[in-house]
Amino acid sequence: MVIMGIDPGLATVGCGVVDFTKNRFTLFSYGAVRTEAHTAVCCRLEKIYDDITELIQKFKPEAISIEKIFFNSNQKTAIDVSQARGVCVLAAQKNQVPVFEYTPLQVKQSVVGYGRAQKCQVEEMVKVLLALSEIPKPDDAADALALAICHAHTSGSIMSYLRRVK
Amino acid sequence: MVIMGIDPGLATVGCGVVDFTKNRFTLFSYGAVRTEAHTAVCCRLEKIYDDITELIQKFKPEAISIEKIFFNSNQKTAIDVSQARGVCVLAAQKNQVPVFEYTPLQVKQSVVGYGRAQKCQVEEMVKVLLALSEIPKPDDAADALALAICHAHTSGSIMSYLRRVK
Repeated sequence: MVIMGIDPGLATVGCGVVDFTKNRFTLFSYGAVRTEAHTAVCCRLEKIYDDITELIQKFKPEAISIEKIFFNSNQKTAIDVSQARGVCVLAAQKNQVPVFEYTPLQVKQSVVGYGRAQKCQVEEMVKVLLALSEIPKPDDAADALALAICHAHTSGSIMSYLRRVK
Repeated sequence: MVIMGIDPGLATVGCGVVDFTKNRFTLFSYGAVRTEAHTAVCCRLEKIYDDITELIQKFKPEAISIEKIFFNSNQKTAIDVSQARGVCVLAAQKNQVPVFEYTPLQVKQSVVGYGRAQKCQVEEMVKVLLALSEIPKPDDAADALALAICHAHTSGSIMSYLRRVK
């Protein structure tokens, strides 16, 4: 199953695409969609939508795993991230790819096995699970890959469970 | 100048289209895009995007006036509203309509002439300025019309000012 992880933001959208078949991961691609701070929000949202659409059409993921967002103290950031997230979800929907959302706690639990894991532990596990020679950069791309891994593990367990209960 | 006001939300997006020519308003249309609470967020965002796109293509506004959002105490609402706002802004951008944003204070100031005006005073002024027999319903549509009026007044004054300083 090809899974695309998306870590939304207005300046940087982390993306990572992996295949998860027979309990093994294969890395397809990772990186970030970036938008310029000095451009209008409408142009930045359009770039995010267009670039995510292009990645979806290129890699044809069967699922998109995206971070469930919470507020932090910075109001403006949360509004910007939510607007960017909205257009990413729309890109998925317009390409008929189902969207799954996970909290940072679920991602840590699933990737490291411990909900309060440090960021560096998550990144290290992403590196190990995807057999990379170094930790993926930027951080947003590593986070996106962690989201994809989280969905692989979660849907994998649900599928094993469904097979078991049949 | 044809102006579309948009009051974004996930359950209800208020919309109002007016023409403002020679200091006079003509009402074109108002109403609300509604999405069902029990459907997935991705489907709700798609419906908002598609319906707003359809309205833009029908009325061909030269400007879109949208509410600048702030957080209130309800985190979930603010995330939902921001995501819905993101797809409305994308619809404008994809149809090459410039987007202008106004705070509730700016809208009240511009429509009623007093930044701390009550909601009912704003609605009453919308009714008077658009020569309606009653206050537009739902509230979101009245808010959207107030946003359109606010942009008409604001851009009108800027244009008068530009003419004056030439």
